[in-house]
Amino acid sequence: MITLAGNEEGIVRGGRDLFHLLPEAFRGIKQIGIVGWSYQGLAQAQSLRASLVEAKSDIVVKIGLRKRSDFYVEARSAGFTEETGTLGDIYETLVESDLVLLLNSDAAQAYNYEEILSHMKPASILGLSHGYILGHLQTQGVYLRRNISVIAVCPKGIGPSRKRMTNGAGTNASFAVYQDVDGRATDVALGWSVALVSPFTFATTLESEYKSNIFGQWGILFGAVRGIAESLFKWYSEKGMAEDLAYKNTVECITGNVSRIISTEGMLSVYNSLSAQGKIDFCTAYNASYHPFMDILYECYEDVASGLEIRSVLLAGCRTNEKDGLPAFSMGKIDQTKIWRVGEKVRATRPEGDLGAVHPFTAGVFLALLMAQVQVLRMKGHSYLEIISECVIEAVDVFCPYMHTHGVSSVDDNCSTMARLESRKWAPRFHYALTQQALVAVDCNTPFGQELISNFLSDPVHGAIKVCAQLRPTDAPGKADFAQVDSN
Amino acid sequence: MITLAGNEEGIVRGGRDLFHLLPEAFRGIKQIGIVGWSYQGLAQAQSLRASLVEAKSDIVVKIGLRKRSDFYVEARSAGFTEETGTLGDIYETLVESDLVLLLNSDAAQAYNYEEILSHMKPASILGLSHGYILGHLQTQGVYLRRNISVIAVCPKGIGPSRKRMTNGAGTNASFAVYQDVDGRATDVALGWSVALVSPFTFATTLESEYKSNIFGQWGILFGAVRGIAESLFKWYSEKGMAEDLAYKNTVECITGNVSRIISTEGMLSVYNSLSAQGKIDFCTAYNASYHPFMDILYECYEDVASGLEIRSVLLAGCRTNEKDGLPAFSMGKIDQTKIWRVGEKVRATRPEGDLGAVHPFTAGVFLALLMAQVQVLRMKGHSYLEIISECVIEAVDVFCPYMHTHGVSSVDDNCSTMARLESRKWAPRFHYALTQQALVAVDCNTPFGQELISNFLSDPVHGAIKVCAQLRPTDAPGKADFAQVDSN
Repeated sequence: MITLAGNEEGIVRGGRDLFHLLPEAFRGIKQIGIVGWSYQGLAQAQSLRASLVEAKSDIVVKIGLRKRSDFYVEARSAGFTEETGTLGDIYETLVESDLVLLLNSDAAQAYNYEEILSHMKPASILGLSHGYILGHLQTQGVYLRRNISVIAVCPKGIGPSRKRMTNGAGTNASFAVYQDVDGRATDVALGWSVALVSPFTFATTLESEYKSNIFGQWGILFGAVRGIAESLFKWYSEKGMAEDLAYKNTVECITGNVSRIISTEGMLSVYNSLSAQGKIDFCTAYNASYHPFMDILYECYEDVASGLEIRSVLLAGCRTNEKDGLPAFSMGKIDQTKIWRVGEKVRATRPEGDLGAVHPFTAGVFLALLMAQVQVLRMKGHSYLEIISECVIEAVDVFCPYMHTHGVSSVDDNCSTMARLESRKWAPRFHYALTQQALVAVDCNTPFGQELISNFLSDPVHGAIKVCAQLRPTDAPGKADFAQVDSN
Repeated sequence: MITLAGNEEGIVRGGRDLFHLLPEAFRGIKQIGIVGWSYQGLAQAQSLRASLVEAKSDIVVKIGLRKRSDFYVEARSAGFTEETGTLGDIYETLVESDLVLLLNSDAAQAYNYEEILSHMKPASILGLSHGYILGHLQTQGVYLRRNISVIAVCPKGIGPSRKRMTNGAGTNASFAVYQDVDGRATDVALGWSVALVSPFTFATTLESEYKSNIFGQWGILFGAVRGIAESLFKWYSEKGMAEDLAYKNTVECITGNVSRIISTEGMLSVYNSLSAQGKIDFCTAYNASYHPFMDILYECYEDVASGLEIRSVLLAGCRTNEKDGLPAFSMGKIDQTKIWRVGEKVRATRPEGDLGAVHPFTAGVFLALLMAQVQVLRMKGHSYLEIISECVIEAVDVFCPYMHTHGVSSVDDNCSTMARLESRKWAPRFHYALTQQALVAVDCNTPFGQELISNFLSDPVHGAIKVCAQLRPTDAPGKADFAQVDSN
């Protein structure tokens, strides 16, 4: 147990020294089938195989792919082959396996879950790395098969950090047990997380996981940074700031130094690092932005929690094909407006390792976003471990550094269809909320009270972040991550 | 039957000369109860009462209000009183009436429909003026009571045109029969529409009505004009256009002369009125905007048709009260950004009756919006009568003139909660689609083919609009409406 903001929350520490427990945790499992080729598929397969070898277990890790899939080559070059029985047809793999890790994309899960589940053995275990499918089924009023166990281990920040997993460094994770038909589910889930070398694992539920995860990733990382940057870039430019400076003071400030400071020293250090005038600007920005952002975040959370967001995204997926006489809509790129063209130039001439300066107003806006997000999740009953993982650590350790290196549009234009859709949906909302409410209030010199800022300064989340930061993999904090992302 | 774009579509002509048929159409009805105090409540009550008197019918029109409602005074001053049995408690009115017209707000219908329906007599008739409640029930998997008839008469453009109804001029309407327990439903529906002095009435279904209506009103009128204007205002300003001119060439152009020309002469006349260079600019704008708009419109339609939009709006309604420890979010005004402050000045100094000039590029953008909207509804199977009523006539005869006189924000900040929510949700999407896709393509001199424009010029909808325009109330076309809106 650890104490976060006065609450006791349970974590399970991982480590190679626990590998000898894997055979016992995985009792009854002869084969782990990995189905689906999202970015997690190969990374988890390699990590599990290596850990099981180290644990002297003879459990087979087999990858199941559709016949003639393009990924056969990729799997073979990683040493999974049909000859050794570690690569095969998807349904053959499902039928044989005692633990099935379903790691395909959200959309694929939504479309194929019935066929996939129907091939699983009774009393076998379905492993998920994301609660998404539960959210999808709930919107359909459908239940998961009752005669299998269902567990989840959800690595945090797996996307750009996949290297860490494949080279054995591991990332932190949450775990959940949704159905347990024979009492083995918790052991298997924790064994799975230990085998992925997760430094620590905390308990959640599938439902809580998908809500906080979709809320955190889709609404915020793929949306808020873009919307905030676009709104502030225009505002600063109108006030006469040069274009490249306006870019540096918006995007670079958020994805660079502000993220680094939060990652290494916490949110309060951003504020404390400012001059007296800087603190005043920060407070103005924070006060003006906090409620407008919370309004949008609250809507985003409830749309996710009610399943509306999931169904809306599935509908959008169907529009990428021609139907009803209407043309197919493939998403256009969104990197050609002025701010992003300026950004391209700024990144091209940026000295290596340059994380830019902290612009006090932008910092105030961004911290208002993070704090409003923390508050929504806290009021909706999520644990501090989940809140901090999904909304703070993942943002400043993984996504912001990635955007700093590759540009915001690189995320928006190259991620999964769902993430791209969400970014196109929510970025305009954050932009409008900031422009129409917050910046208008600042321009009118609307007076603000002391309450929001004093709440910010005394919020228990800061202490909780400090505790969580210490639980991160030792090679990970701050600068290391920025560097690592560069080399991805 | 009339022929629209080669399809035969049925209409029913109204007129005072049909009033003598009302007693027969309303056979079995002794009292019409009007429940709910939306803007339609009093207008319909007055219109029905006057028509029934003229028809020498002794059917009582009674208004049902919650005890101690603030609207008692308003109803009394219109001559509905408890003493004459034409004003009473809501549930007493429901229990007594043979035809109940449920005219309260969408939100109120969603929250109270069970209690309201449970008070109705078996075999009585529920009359709606909007298919919304059906959309709501479908998202809940709930059905309407089976032992009552359910009909709808949906006046088009009722909001700002309520004067027309109360002074006996009438507006066109659609009608639908959803359940008919004893064979009277169609007669009652047509009688109701005749009694409202609708010049013509066309058939639809409740489902088709709510889909096209919500799509047309919420997504477009409360959203697209704002989003387009904000995007173009910024783009023109960046190219050096003076602020007041940029306002005139965006908002005023759309809500003024372009709407007037469409209203009086049709969409093709907007194009034909342009100079050779103007036509080139129009085509560039049209070609660049059509698909990005259709993308958003298609999403809007499917979110409405699937019930997602309705549920999302209901969730938003709940956020206007404090809950779960999160504050209440009343919507902030959205009229303080630069464009709308400029607009206020422009309107204040505008000569009376000034409808501005036609800016060819803006006109091309706006017509791309209308045509994309027509195309989505057409492919989704709506009749031309419905498409043209909801998306063309209502826009250019009612909403644009209203916005021209009072400003766009006056609509966005003063309409029903739902309309305001929708405007806040979709305006940013249209803005982004135009800025990120269309204007970027124009700035890059992306070449466009001839296909979209030649489709536009030869689209059968133009002929259909001409036919529908002739069916409008004779005092209504174009300028008359602009003037009328002024005096509302």
